Amino acid sequence: MTAPAPLDFHFDFISPYGYFASLRIEDLAARHGRTVRWHPMLLGVSVMKVMGLKPLLDTPLKGPYTERDVLRYAREHRVPMQRQPADPVMQPLACARAMAWVAAHQPQRAAEVAHRMYAAYWGQGLDLSTPQSLAPVLGAELAEAAAGEDAARLLRAEVDAALAAGIFGSPTVVVDGEPFWGIDKFEQIERWLATGGW
Amino acid sequence: MTAPAPLDFHFDFISPYGYFASLRIEDLAARHGRTVRWHPMLLGVSVMKVMGLKPLLDTPLKGPYTERDVLRYAREHRVPMQRQPADPVMQPLACARAMAWVAAHQPQRAAEVAHRMYAAYWGQGLDLSTPQSLAPVLGAELAEAAAGEDAARLLRAEVDAALAAGIFGSPTVVVDGEPFWGIDKFEQIERWLATGGW
Repeated sequence: MTAPAPLDFHFDFISPYGYFASLRIEDLAARHGRTVRWHPMLLGVSVMKVMGLKPLLDTPLKGPYTERDVLRYAREHRVPMQRQPADPVMQPLACARAMAWVAAHQPQRAAEVAHRMYAAYWGQGLDLSTPQSLAPVLGAELAEAAAGEDAARLLRAEVDAALAAGIFGSPTVVVDGEPFWGIDKFEQIERWLATGGW
Repeated sequence: MTAPAPLDFHFDFISPYGYFASLRIEDLAARHGRTVRWHPMLLGVSVMKVMGLKPLLDTPLKGPYTERDVLRYAREHRVPMQRQPADPVMQPLACARAMAWVAAHQPQRAAEVAHRMYAAYWGQGLDLSTPQSLAPVLGAELAEAAAGEDAARLLRAEVDAALAAGIFGSPTVVVDGEPFWGIDKFEQIERWLATGGW
């Protein structure tokens, strides 16, 4: 018997729902004998360029609702969050490139690196918009890698692959080819994993 | 002690997620000693006019995902569905007006009437786009009421009130003033009702 395939976890660092999901995805996977592959994505490409939508928080009606929903989730699950959903959005390229580099070259560190960046950005409200700003959080080696062409190329490949697979939102969890979009899907993913799907 | 307030259930008949939610909302409410108030809404007003978005199924990437997600939900919960998510969208005014009229004048029949229209449209794939087409489903009296000015006025009031309350999506459940959008929120609504909120 071969081991079951990892769960593919797609997320953008600017997404509070991606942050929330990052705190649950490993436990979810482990309960079903799975591991996690960490995939940075860019909502600025999928949502704004390809789908032609405004950012969530700038959409009438949906913006205020989303702010309320994010804060409600954080309270329920006691998630540390110094940054507010309505705060100015960070340029996520440095984080996403660091993530793409780690996922490719040091996959055993991917989870730790994702958690460090999410905790620093959403949990502590730090600015991580430049490779230099990553050094105190991830160390000098990774901060330098995030500034390099290899990381940029790896991220472009991730972004292209996600779009080709129809993935547009953060978080998206892909289970054996089946995509589930949104933190609110975790209960259904759990049932899918437990039953083998339907 | 006064009785706890009803749950306000907002839905559009063209919304498959509204259909799915309509099949669970009464049980959810009853488990927590609540009743349900049924509120027709028009996604064509909230999503397209106010929010400036394309219909869900016409949005790149999100369209194909939504189709898959709807069919997956219907399979999991064994919901009858002769109409496909990608089928042409019905003009929902007749249904929404009938619903607004019943909710105002015969509220004890509101649940039954909502179920009849959803079952006919999504379950059996019938066309309900005109008041006449409602007669076999709801009877002549209601079909006639749906064609009248009173029903049109009542629906406009519902649509205005929903927008004023920031409600944009179908289904939306409002619990003591707290809005929850989406069928995927039902587990969280259950926890909110069980705990009194957080």
